[in-house]
Amino acid sequence: MLIKDVSIIEAGRLQSGRDILIEEGRITSVGSDLGRNSNEEEIIDGRGKLAIPGLINGHTHLAMTLLRGYADDMELMPWLQEKIWPLEAKITEEDVFWGVKLGCLELIRFGITCYNDMYYFPDTAACATREMGLRAFLSGVVFDMKPELLGQVEPFIRRWKGDELIVPTVGPHAAYTCSEETLLKVKEIADRHDAMIHIHLSETREEVDGFLLSKGKSPVEYLDSLGLVNERLAAVHCVWLSPEDCHLLAQRKANVISCTESNLKLTSGIAPLNTMMQAGINVCLGTDGASSNNNLSLFEEMKTTAIAQKNAYHTPANFSAEQIWHMATENAARAFRLGLGLRPGALADLALIDLKKPWFWPQSNIISHLVYSMAGGVDTTIVAGKVLMQNGVIPGEEEILEKAQERFLRLTS
Amino acid sequence: MLIKDVSIIEAGRLQSGRDILIEEGRITSVGSDLGRNSNEEEIIDGRGKLAIPGLINGHTHLAMTLLRGYADDMELMPWLQEKIWPLEAKITEEDVFWGVKLGCLELIRFGITCYNDMYYFPDTAACATREMGLRAFLSGVVFDMKPELLGQVEPFIRRWKGDELIVPTVGPHAAYTCSEETLLKVKEIADRHDAMIHIHLSETREEVDGFLLSKGKSPVEYLDSLGLVNERLAAVHCVWLSPEDCHLLAQRKANVISCTESNLKLTSGIAPLNTMMQAGINVCLGTDGASSNNNLSLFEEMKTTAIAQKNAYHTPANFSAEQIWHMATENAARAFRLGLGLRPGALADLALIDLKKPWFWPQSNIISHLVYSMAGGVDTTIVAGKVLMQNGVIPGEEEILEKAQERFLRLTS
Repeated sequence: MLIKDVSIIEAGRLQSGRDILIEEGRITSVGSDLGRNSNEEEIIDGRGKLAIPGLINGHTHLAMTLLRGYADDMELMPWLQEKIWPLEAKITEEDVFWGVKLGCLELIRFGITCYNDMYYFPDTAACATREMGLRAFLSGVVFDMKPELLGQVEPFIRRWKGDELIVPTVGPHAAYTCSEETLLKVKEIADRHDAMIHIHLSETREEVDGFLLSKGKSPVEYLDSLGLVNERLAAVHCVWLSPEDCHLLAQRKANVISCTESNLKLTSGIAPLNTMMQAGINVCLGTDGASSNNNLSLFEEMKTTAIAQKNAYHTPANFSAEQIWHMATENAARAFRLGLGLRPGALADLALIDLKKPWFWPQSNIISHLVYSMAGGVDTTIVAGKVLMQNGVIPGEEEILEKAQERFLRLTS
Repeated sequence: MLIKDVSIIEAGRLQSGRDILIEEGRITSVGSDLGRNSNEEEIIDGRGKLAIPGLINGHTHLAMTLLRGYADDMELMPWLQEKIWPLEAKITEEDVFWGVKLGCLELIRFGITCYNDMYYFPDTAACATREMGLRAFLSGVVFDMKPELLGQVEPFIRRWKGDELIVPTVGPHAAYTCSEETLLKVKEIADRHDAMIHIHLSETREEVDGFLLSKGKSPVEYLDSLGLVNERLAAVHCVWLSPEDCHLLAQRKANVISCTESNLKLTSGIAPLNTMMQAGINVCLGTDGASSNNNLSLFEEMKTTAIAQKNAYHTPANFSAEQIWHMATENAARAFRLGLGLRPGALADLALIDLKKPWFWPQSNIISHLVYSMAGGVDTTIVAGKVLMQNGVIPGEEEILEKAQERFLRLTS
């Protein structure tokens, strides 16, 4: 496949007239006039478009896209007890299948080529994701109230290890919902398979206070004492970290996935990203599930993160567009150990954005526009060299919308 | 014009199969099967689309769209002194003309049919806006450093009073940039013409502290002592209001235009909307200019306002989607005394949104989706019965983008 005459970002600036050659799922060349000697049959016209590396959504519960708008504007406990948990008790594999597909539609439309997920029925999520053509890091959720879940982790990993698109991971829900024994077990499995651990960590003040009172340790210190804090950890939220927690996470090379919009909507607080970055933590971005965000756009998440953090620290010059863009791209690629980028040898995971939208004009500072003014325009999304959306069209989209609606009506009936 | 078979929101729920009849710039009928006896030549197919009343962007500096991305991530004073003011000193009428047109493109794409603006060369802005077909409340900016501006206010009002689309207003920049004499003069002009007063008010803590120190009054109390606080006041920002300020503004029936995204980006703080609403102030939303936001989307502003306010007050159940939607629609119509809404007799200012976008699915709670998950899909925008965009196409868009780019390059050369 050859993408001809596209714009890319070089040293922070828009460069037009570039060609991108893709062979066997990887970018093999980026330059000018690559088409001259090419016999490529599949040619994508890149004129007026910007190519960016595919984005990674660092934290989702994709099947919960089915619950979007079902319960908003509630206190956390009534929300969980009266709305989310009763519905989740009824969720079937078929619900997960169509919920994940609905979520994938949205990811594709936002230029997201890979997502990191934790939910029930991960095999079903994996099948649905493969059919949609996206890349995903998937974990079944593990917590002690459903003890049968723990036993399903290793078989799931064995089934999907080595898959081209699906990377199985381990998903203990949180330190407060898993016993020490469970956490040691998931660590053992993760170590054995060199798998990532995906966990909600220090999301609320109550969680942290609870650990300090009962164990004399913060949740981060507690997890570290069990050996779970390392470069394969994706620690989600981390709203209530002490400076010591930050230094510990940095020292262990753990990754933090910040979810500003979900944290604001659920009133969990604003994560201390300034302290994290100063400590040297690899900070990435995620949207959380659509029942607490309520969409899966990383562009929106970038802007909200930048402006909420600027205001929280009274530092307008900090959390610059470049820093935030770096979090969403390079940091995420590092956390998930994915060779992403518009360069030879990288995975052919990318998106083309229509630069003719007015929010990209004047064409002054493309990174600023992507972070602060982007309001749509992803035109083409490609994963592993396969086109999932072109000219804004995703084959089969309408059937997925209808099936998702059917599943939602069944769930809530 | 007849919009056939469209969905609308009735009592918070999606109702499909509605027809909307438009005659001479107004909605004359909303119901089922209106087409049967109609000889309308212009018929818009509304199937799969949602009609909403056109949105009002309550605070903009539209010509500054030309400066989008030119200077981000800076402290306020260097930003103004090194970047914005030197550039503004060079701004010509032609720059304003194309900057406004660029901004109008964006407004149209966000379903915004009316905007409230303050900037230089308001006659030029009015001409550009009329050509684009949008409705606007326009004021030339007034402040003492350029004393010639004050004299231009009344002639501008006389020229545009009674225009179908343009409503002239008075725009004293702020209480700290206009002398008492100037403020009394603008009040006199506003009273004479029953015109709105558009002013930045209590935006930063420094502004409020300065007034308390020098005058023993808050900026709100000071303006009130001069007689400027009434139902024709559009007080923008109001980040640093005391409870007394809130009660005063409510008592006088003044309108507050809150600009959460701009306030966060410039680190001005989070406005006390909870106190304002409890006091009974009519609160509306605006984006501010594209050099401090950096786009003009009211959908984005709705979501950020909701979640930032929820978090600030730790009240997840407050600032509900319905409350925020109300601010963006009914409250705005009240502030600007515009007959908007999908009902007979209302202005034919509306937008059609493509409901086939995945962020509207499952179709559970349409108001929640519009506020929290909307990420594009405005398909058609109509002002005064005239179609400005249909199927996402705005005639002449490309020329405007190119002209705006030329003007930006000239300005920054």
